[in-house]
Amino acid sequence: MRHVLSVLVDNKPGVLSRVAGLFTRRGFNIDSLAVSPTEDVDRSRMTIACDDTKFPIEQVTKQLDKLINVIKIRDLDPQNMVARELTLLKVRAEGSARGEVIQLVEIFGARIIDVTPDTVTIQATGESDMLANFEELIRPYGLIELVKTGVVALGRGADPT
Amino acid sequence: MRHVLSVLVDNKPGVLSRVAGLFTRRGFNIDSLAVSPTEDVDRSRMTIACDDTKFPIEQVTKQLDKLINVIKIRDLDPQNMVARELTLLKVRAEGSARGEVIQLVEIFGARIIDVTPDTVTIQATGESDMLANFEELIRPYGLIELVKTGVVALGRGADPT
Repeated sequence: MRHVLSVLVDNKPGVLSRVAGLFTRRGFNIDSLAVSPTEDVDRSRMTIACDDTKFPIEQVTKQLDKLINVIKIRDLDPQNMVARELTLLKVRAEGSARGEVIQLVEIFGARIIDVTPDTVTIQATGESDMLANFEELIRPYGLIELVKTGVVALGRGADPT
Repeated sequence: MRHVLSVLVDNKPGVLSRVAGLFTRRGFNIDSLAVSPTEDVDRSRMTIACDDTKFPIEQVTKQLDKLINVIKIRDLDPQNMVARELTLLKVRAEGSARGEVIQLVEIFGARIIDVTPDTVTIQATGESDMLANFEELIRPYGLIELVKTGVVALGRGADPT
């Protein structure tokens, strides 16, 4: 099952390196990682998506907790979080294919943000499953390249994550 | 000035650690980092946003290029890229404040993805400046928490980045 870890850290050089080093030393591979400032400029939040069949979540959480500059770790409850990611896709869209690509973009509530005579670049936002589905439908047209942010998430409800 | 580095790497444990280690050893701090799989499952793309007043871009690019499993580095031309990021914001929205928050959400083309009696959680997508502006306008209502993906970008035009 996929887990989303939300890790609040001090915004200092070296934190990312220590966290990444912990994964590497133990041979844990992650699905995605996003790190960016938070509502408090002195702190950053790392959002780590990982698969618990390849990743011993509990052990990692305990070890992360011991690292310097790591303030708080939450293994977010999938039933009780909002999780989103963003993908940019550059895809071939010549002739009649263009109309079909535009249709998919509309169905998925995505947006075209760059156009050339042969290609379009699409911004798509949503839950991971939805984006995977969109990617699969777009791929046959000729996916030139794709970049994803990785997932970010907050707990549902009024309380801080 | 902000730079966006797009770094194509092999999807192997240890790559993130080596890249992060390079920054740490030299005391370089980055603004954001997003790492996620690409159109090719064997490769990941890291998108690194950094400020060239605090970060010697050219030197870093050369050193990144020497790392194992780093395939390609592009310092994207700001005039010739599409760059987007995604932010989730949980904000107080009681009584009359709620209507005002909803108005801002509509103006910025954002979306409300969770609601409680006292709060709303908003998903906002766009260019970094636009999101910073949105965050500034939302903050006075009572920003409970915020998580950002960090920027991702592709070069404009038909060619791969």
